[in-house]
Amino acid sequence: MAQNIYDDPGFFAGYSQLNRSLHGLDGAPEWPAIQALLPPMAGKRVVDLGCGFGWFSRWAAAQGAAGVLGIDLSARMLARARAETSHPAIAYQQADLETLELEEARFDLAYSALAFHYLADFPRLVATVHRALAPGGHFVFTIEHPIYMASTRPGWLARDDGAHAWALDHYAVEGPRETDWLAPGVIKQHRRMATTVNALIAAGFTLAALDEWAPSPAQLAAQPALQDEVERPMMLLVSARRG
Amino acid sequence: MAQNIYDDPGFFAGYSQLNRSLHGLDGAPEWPAIQALLPPMAGKRVVDLGCGFGWFSRWAAAQGAAGVLGIDLSARMLARARAETSHPAIAYQQADLETLELEEARFDLAYSALAFHYLADFPRLVATVHRALAPGGHFVFTIEHPIYMASTRPGWLARDDGAHAWALDHYAVEGPRETDWLAPGVIKQHRRMATTVNALIAAGFTLAALDEWAPSPAQLAAQPALQDEVERPMMLLVSARRG
Repeated sequence: MAQNIYDDPGFFAGYSQLNRSLHGLDGAPEWPAIQALLPPMAGKRVVDLGCGFGWFSRWAAAQGAAGVLGIDLSARMLARARAETSHPAIAYQQADLETLELEEARFDLAYSALAFHYLADFPRLVATVHRALAPGGHFVFTIEHPIYMASTRPGWLARDDGAHAWALDHYAVEGPRETDWLAPGVIKQHRRMATTVNALIAAGFTLAALDEWAPSPAQLAAQPALQDEVERPMMLLVSARRG
Repeated sequence: MAQNIYDDPGFFAGYSQLNRSLHGLDGAPEWPAIQALLPPMAGKRVVDLGCGFGWFSRWAAAQGAAGVLGIDLSARMLARARAETSHPAIAYQQADLETLELEEARFDLAYSALAFHYLADFPRLVATVHRALAPGGHFVFTIEHPIYMASTRPGWLARDDGAHAWALDHYAVEGPRETDWLAPGVIKQHRRMATTVNALIAAGFTLAALDEWAPSPAQLAAQPALQDEVERPMMLLVSARRG
């Protein structure tokens, strides 16, 4: 079973204060780039894998999705998602993505934001999603970028002149990385970019696009701290298609 | 026109002393990983883009390729390739990959090793290769990994405890990088991994596999210095298919 860190009270309290938790999709600077990868929602049957507070599920329903199934491991997150959702097209379900079962050809779009880097068995999830999509179905997801995850001691190192560079090491060593983000001992799973892409291809997906998200000039002007994202990507956006 | 650094006498002298120049394909530790991406050569019409001393062209011909066209910008490299080649299936041609023209549907495999990171206009080359391949044709190439190229001051930074980490910065800033490798002022072109992959997809290719090359345990035991390649990838191997 995946670590259920989102139900840790300290983690949950911290996570609830993030911009993306307070302001939803518009609080996530990568949201415009994700939208560019998404098909039109009208009439789509959508599964939202790691739906959290349900921001995307509600957006998809508001855009005309025929149905949205939001899935998350965290009881706390689902409780808030349910409390904030009244749209009849949305249902929520508590499940672990490591052991998830989905009906065959049940969905037109599988979406996930910043959840899969917690999974130890990514190929199993990809095979499950492939089966669950109708032919021509879309698979759009974001994960932490492997450049961001690779180091066993991630962070910035100072150069002699005071400039900083992101520390990269252990890139080829895949597997768990323990970090203290909002709570001590959060476990993430580092995979190389090639490993993620090859898992999709092996399952039968056709890769449609990658985006190593970086801020636009306007975003950078409004939020100078996003310069870090120019130096090293924190997020990888992936779009694939079931043939 | 691309910088013709390989015809710089100092660069050429240094390059000629590299393991991969002295020992050919077997002097390149990534060669087994490249072979895993290649289709059988028998009967194939092959173009070798940036053929250098012709090691791959000769290997392909020896494996039964129907014909091999080796293309390089460097007169010095082509002179040595021609001097060392007697196979009737091989022809060499001097051309700049930035402005290369190839006949339509003329080849079954386009191959390139560590050449495309010198090109400013990668999409033009990809479109040229797509047109030059017959339907079902293979496109297999290696480039310097963008993690290796990104920094404006590439190299290792020391941590307090003496461990080292690769310096990553300016990853999202694509364009020229000047380095002093074998000669001062070598110009390479940094592109993000997503940019390379998306250029292939935009031209009509289907991505078949990526490999961010790292040494095998046996290679690491034989050459401990290859540990650097575990910390951060130096090479990206790409396999794509024309539909």
